[in-house]
Amino acid sequence: MKMFSKETYLERRKKLKEKIGSGVLLFLGNEESSSNFKDNWYPFRQDSTFLYFFGLDIPGLAAVIDIDQDVEILFGDDLTTEQTVWHGNHPLLSELGDAVGIKTIKAKNEISALVAKSADGTIHYLPPYRPENSQKLSDLFSWSLQKIHSGASIDLIKAVVGLRSIKTEEEIAEITEAVNISVRMHKRVMKEAKPGMKEYQLLGLVTGEALASGGHLSFPPIITIDGQTLHNHKYGNTLTEGKMLLGDFGAESAMRYAGDITRTSPVGLEFSPMQREVYQIVLSAYKAGVSALKPGVRFKDVHLSACKKLAEGLKDLGLMKGNLDDAVHEGAHALFFQCGLGHMMGLDVHDMEDLGEEYVGYTDELKKSDQFGLKSLRLGKELEKGFVVTIEPGVYFIPQLIDQWQAAKLHSDFINYDRLADFRDFGGIRVEDAYLITESGSKILGDPLEIELSAVEGIRKG
Amino acid sequence: MKMFSKETYLERRKKLKEKIGSGVLLFLGNEESSSNFKDNWYPFRQDSTFLYFFGLDIPGLAAVIDIDQDVEILFGDDLTTEQTVWHGNHPLLSELGDAVGIKTIKAKNEISALVAKSADGTIHYLPPYRPENSQKLSDLFSWSLQKIHSGASIDLIKAVVGLRSIKTEEEIAEITEAVNISVRMHKRVMKEAKPGMKEYQLLGLVTGEALASGGHLSFPPIITIDGQTLHNHKYGNTLTEGKMLLGDFGAESAMRYAGDITRTSPVGLEFSPMQREVYQIVLSAYKAGVSALKPGVRFKDVHLSACKKLAEGLKDLGLMKGNLDDAVHEGAHALFFQCGLGHMMGLDVHDMEDLGEEYVGYTDELKKSDQFGLKSLRLGKELEKGFVVTIEPGVYFIPQLIDQWQAAKLHSDFINYDRLADFRDFGGIRVEDAYLITESGSKILGDPLEIELSAVEGIRKG
Repeated sequence: MKMFSKETYLERRKKLKEKIGSGVLLFLGNEESSSNFKDNWYPFRQDSTFLYFFGLDIPGLAAVIDIDQDVEILFGDDLTTEQTVWHGNHPLLSELGDAVGIKTIKAKNEISALVAKSADGTIHYLPPYRPENSQKLSDLFSWSLQKIHSGASIDLIKAVVGLRSIKTEEEIAEITEAVNISVRMHKRVMKEAKPGMKEYQLLGLVTGEALASGGHLSFPPIITIDGQTLHNHKYGNTLTEGKMLLGDFGAESAMRYAGDITRTSPVGLEFSPMQREVYQIVLSAYKAGVSALKPGVRFKDVHLSACKKLAEGLKDLGLMKGNLDDAVHEGAHALFFQCGLGHMMGLDVHDMEDLGEEYVGYTDELKKSDQFGLKSLRLGKELEKGFVVTIEPGVYFIPQLIDQWQAAKLHSDFINYDRLADFRDFGGIRVEDAYLITESGSKILGDPLEIELSAVEGIRKG
Repeated sequence: MKMFSKETYLERRKKLKEKIGSGVLLFLGNEESSSNFKDNWYPFRQDSTFLYFFGLDIPGLAAVIDIDQDVEILFGDDLTTEQTVWHGNHPLLSELGDAVGIKTIKAKNEISALVAKSADGTIHYLPPYRPENSQKLSDLFSWSLQKIHSGASIDLIKAVVGLRSIKTEEEIAEITEAVNISVRMHKRVMKEAKPGMKEYQLLGLVTGEALASGGHLSFPPIITIDGQTLHNHKYGNTLTEGKMLLGDFGAESAMRYAGDITRTSPVGLEFSPMQREVYQIVLSAYKAGVSALKPGVRFKDVHLSACKKLAEGLKDLGLMKGNLDDAVHEGAHALFFQCGLGHMMGLDVHDMEDLGEEYVGYTDELKKSDQFGLKSLRLGKELEKGFVVTIEPGVYFIPQLIDQWQAAKLHSDFINYDRLADFRDFGGIRVEDAYLITESGSKILGDPLEIELSAVEGIRKG
């Protein structure tokens, strides 16, 4: 188990305690997760906030920080001798606690006594996203599941978001490692994809590469010739000449930091003229987004400047028309770009998504819009130095959506529905990289990966 | 989604209804399973019994068979237009139902009304193994989780076990496909493993191969130089000359049938003399087990005959002594072979493990032994034509166990503890294949994979 130094975890918890001030903080680690029978497990994934404060990447742990008593306790059970026969020797919990600066170790079943004792004070916990942890909290507090879900501590959420949002140097090194593995995964796909292959062959290739690098996948890969389907987790198509291959995938480093990159490349050796035009529009929007990144700027505005750029390109192509400021303001471009420009990235690929978008991406003052398009923007608030964000514009021709809008004559002042017929089966294009917000602007993370049109074709041609 | 013909599912359900006779049968499919936040999902795995009777490999379904009313209902929700924008077009539930012979489709939330209506009759359900399905049943019946777990229908379990245990020709073809992918995975590892590699590089290789074949892994691979650790899911060791590499892994076919093969090969080009001797003992036990397979024989006796063979070899090696019938009867050999000789295999790698070993592997007459060793034998009962079982003997030198037994002078009439010191760091050897029980004996499934010592070395030497 790779982890940071003891001092890192001590420092993180110290800052957390200062932010919260008083009360008891309860953190549940994750358990093994069953697939088709109880003991057939998915690969273990620790809770990211647990990793952030306690660094221990093994199942079945919990931790409590009692701020007023100034005590930190790790709850868990050492392996029995019989278990070591089956599972081999594991470090003792006391050794693990020591590695992350925790002196008090208690058996897992002692946690309920502690909660009962503290029941008159405030026990802060984070919103559970796995059913077994919801149940555990429900049992611990004797609360209904509904009350458990509404009872998560907003103070704790805000404090955790405040800390995890600003990446330290050692975290940036880990994210960079994840990005570099992701770059290798993409290079292999861009080199090895061939007409006639099945998408699942490429799924095997990228998954194998991620695991062979000592890490994992950071999310279920999207590798598809149906790039217009935004959440496409099917891999059954055959790659055919003339189509484009959209690959949106990334590695998770051994320490569970995420990488997330998207490239779109021709299945054959070259893009078609029409594909070239749309690709350049997406790339211009990407560059507009990147150049807008700096501390103090709202990511919502970065998003909108990229949308404006997309709209300009789509107007040149004859797909949009009219005043583009109005078009973007009214959300007409969202027919082509239905989602957000990017998201925070860190220990989670959508960093801290379990803690709630309203806290991670927005503020008490800036609430998320409910306009189609903007309502899928996970991050809107002002950027700060140390944020890591993705920039991932795209243009997607989604037949179902085109039909829906056209039937309703939606935004017909801004959309040339006639011209759109030619693009109905075009598919989708997206490019994506991760950027660190610096003092004065931003910096791309990781090794360079071809993104210019000719460079992408260059890889395809070998 | 690949599935059998409509007739297959109609026939399976018909047989099930005949076996149960009366009442309402409720089957919950599986949901998506969250890793580090709600929408970051593990690869979906449908419940195997749901697949067996209803064939539909997508999340969020349930089904009811009302035997007395002669109605079969599929519960689920079609995608909304907004969802098709994100997820692409999916077949309608009515089309899916039609593909598996179900005419009545209802919205998911209608299931509670149906359960409430049937509350005076018997509703049979299977034991849930995922927390969300336990919760769903608890909500549906307004029963505590404890009552839900004790309330599963033994009649239904027995009927399902009765049907799923006997593999049909089309199932055997699917298992064979999974085995053949597994054979390719093993050949690659045996060819490509090299001193200096990390175990996780091989994990990447086998996972990539399984996915690239259009299937999945059937369980978390064991690929380790610490073969003595029976449940080893760590991959951090470096392969070193002189060690052996134990690979126990398999593919799941696109239709979710499992393969499961184990081979042990030298990290270098050849086994050491000591390794050769132990390998031959394990291989003899494997052959003894295989030759004992036939309908009417208890698998417990197959297991014991393999144990006897192991004991004979270990006596020749000077590690055991005394009367070997007594030794095996008293379980002394379990110091070296702590687990069972094999298990059923089908839609699950440990087939139907969620339904309970007492029903899958044992009977009302033959209960599982609680002797160390035998208590880990998942399958004890009489074999029948159409069973698919694995044969996987091994010899494992587990330092923790050796120390424990030696300190307690356990079975010292049968164990030469002095001689054992030389083997303390030996590691472990296992070989495993899957066999179909035929009319007169058994038949290995899948393409041949080297198992003889010289043949394994032959692959290593290229």
